[in-house]
Amino acid sequence: MSEKIRVGIVGYGNLGKGAVKAVQLTNDLELVAVFTRRDPETLEIDAPNVTTVHIDEAKNYTEAIDVMLLCGGSATDLPEQTPQFAKLFNTVDSYDTHAKIPEYFESVNQPASENNKTSIISVGWDPGLFSINRVVSEAILSSGETYTFWGEGLSQGHSDAVRRVDGVKDGVQYTIPADDAMDRVRNGENPALSKTDSHRRVCYIVPEEGADTEKIEQDIKTMPDYFVDYDTEVNFISEEELKENHSKAKHGGFVIRSSKTGNDNNQIYEFSLKLDSNPEFTASVVAAYARAAYRLNKDGQYGAKTVYDVAPAHISPRSQEEIRRDYL
Amino acid sequence: MSEKIRVGIVGYGNLGKGAVKAVQLTNDLELVAVFTRRDPETLEIDAPNVTTVHIDEAKNYTEAIDVMLLCGGSATDLPEQTPQFAKLFNTVDSYDTHAKIPEYFESVNQPASENNKTSIISVGWDPGLFSINRVVSEAILSSGETYTFWGEGLSQGHSDAVRRVDGVKDGVQYTIPADDAMDRVRNGENPALSKTDSHRRVCYIVPEEGADTEKIEQDIKTMPDYFVDYDTEVNFISEEELKENHSKAKHGGFVIRSSKTGNDNNQIYEFSLKLDSNPEFTASVVAAYARAAYRLNKDGQYGAKTVYDVAPAHISPRSQEEIRRDYL
Repeated sequence: MSEKIRVGIVGYGNLGKGAVKAVQLTNDLELVAVFTRRDPETLEIDAPNVTTVHIDEAKNYTEAIDVMLLCGGSATDLPEQTPQFAKLFNTVDSYDTHAKIPEYFESVNQPASENNKTSIISVGWDPGLFSINRVVSEAILSSGETYTFWGEGLSQGHSDAVRRVDGVKDGVQYTIPADDAMDRVRNGENPALSKTDSHRRVCYIVPEEGADTEKIEQDIKTMPDYFVDYDTEVNFISEEELKENHSKAKHGGFVIRSSKTGNDNNQIYEFSLKLDSNPEFTASVVAAYARAAYRLNKDGQYGAKTVYDVAPAHISPRSQEEIRRDYL
Repeated sequence: MSEKIRVGIVGYGNLGKGAVKAVQLTNDLELVAVFTRRDPETLEIDAPNVTTVHIDEAKNYTEAIDVMLLCGGSATDLPEQTPQFAKLFNTVDSYDTHAKIPEYFESVNQPASENNKTSIISVGWDPGLFSINRVVSEAILSSGETYTFWGEGLSQGHSDAVRRVDGVKDGVQYTIPADDAMDRVRNGENPALSKTDSHRRVCYIVPEEGADTEKIEQDIKTMPDYFVDYDTEVNFISEEELKENHSKAKHGGFVIRSSKTGNDNNQIYEFSLKLDSNPEFTASVVAAYARAAYRLNKDGQYGAKTVYDVAPAHISPRSQEEIRRDYL
């Protein structure tokens, strides 16, 4: 092992906290500082020798940090921060607004290229590992269909929606892949599936005292956009149960490609994740891709990159000889 | 789509036949010729405009072919052929003798490097896609365990073994991952598993007329090395049943990494394949990596390479803009 790759983290929400933990689990990455818009004195970082610094001071760390992990949100933080940071640092981010990725890519590519920096955008699991598997499975199996199922996962947007229903004190919503749809795909039937066919929704609701639970159930099941087109299940539970069993940010999902080759031979390719902590896993992917940002930059590959530009060896802490000998 | 990548196939066994089919399913690869040690006149290729050529004439095709798909066996064909072909062509092969990969790599790297050619070795699913997932999952999830399960799959070696048993007319053997072992891994228990814990063996046997089936079952279950340490099931069937239900070269398997992050959060990463035709799938992977051999070579990346050196964009028939917009 040569010198460690020195990383910084920008933003200390759930993703930033996950990134601190992910870096600590490695032997080849070293966390130098966490940057925040808050008063840096108020941040308590659960890791040794980590400085907390106001984000405005980041520009003084260009010599001390090899790769900056940008852990802000996709709605407002990253579109503003990443083009700025890409002028000064190699970066990795988890920008996840799928529809705006081409535009975001361009906004990062220009400053990174002009300043000989490497910025890997939209790293995580979807976009990220799921994106890789959609492309790789189709590259190999030219004919056929690719399916993405999400869940079992806690959906923030849908949980917010049930909590706005009259008589609901608290609650969560899980998106769950429909078993029958998954079975049909795995059997090589290549069904036409809408998002509503492929998923069902399960809610755990804490009602307010004396609330009409039948009405709550009805209000949720008929809610436009969010629930009305789905197979929806509503369960009523106590506040204690909610806290005990439904406080983890679980998520995951499946990418399945179903293809036929030759004389009617079914070929099923499947990738899946079952995550107890969505932000901690996403942060682990971001941390692994810090190695790639560092190595691509050393190799003169400047500008914005995605997971599609990164070979497996780029993200491994091990040497080429080692992975050929022990993992191939 | 620019000009097609022109490929040749060396060897016309099951893998070579699968490669013909795989190339035909693409829009960006063009099959120019199949090379054989047999009399080329005797080969019937199920594809239009494909020449059959004796392998000794391959040297005359250096201008006509961009990438050679080497579809010989790992025991004797590839160790001899690949270093020779790597002097003249970019190549892709599916060398699968895991223990000898480092030595094989060196034997190919030198001639390829010296002649400015690119040779991607050990492409397929194991080695190949499984190898990628072992490295990627560990790069992301630093702590934890990685498990590989093979099957449900027809094992050639074990099928040969049961057919040598006294009183057996014909038969096949499937290696099957043990459900309880898989469940424990998926539940995040990180069990210590031997190969015998992780797999069971199921045989379908056609007995000779009047044979003692109890003795056959006993002989199989107690066979050293092959069966004695495994949970083995022996079924007796008719010759017709064997032909109807057990003539496909099914295979597949699972790579699962089980890890914990943060405060006891289980993170399960899983990749699996369920293949009706092992050689057709392997050939499909080899064909996809022809794109990478061609592109790496254009990019000046000469010598022996493995799947670890190949980014997802290298094997996709689509443009970078398209995969960023539609697949990320």
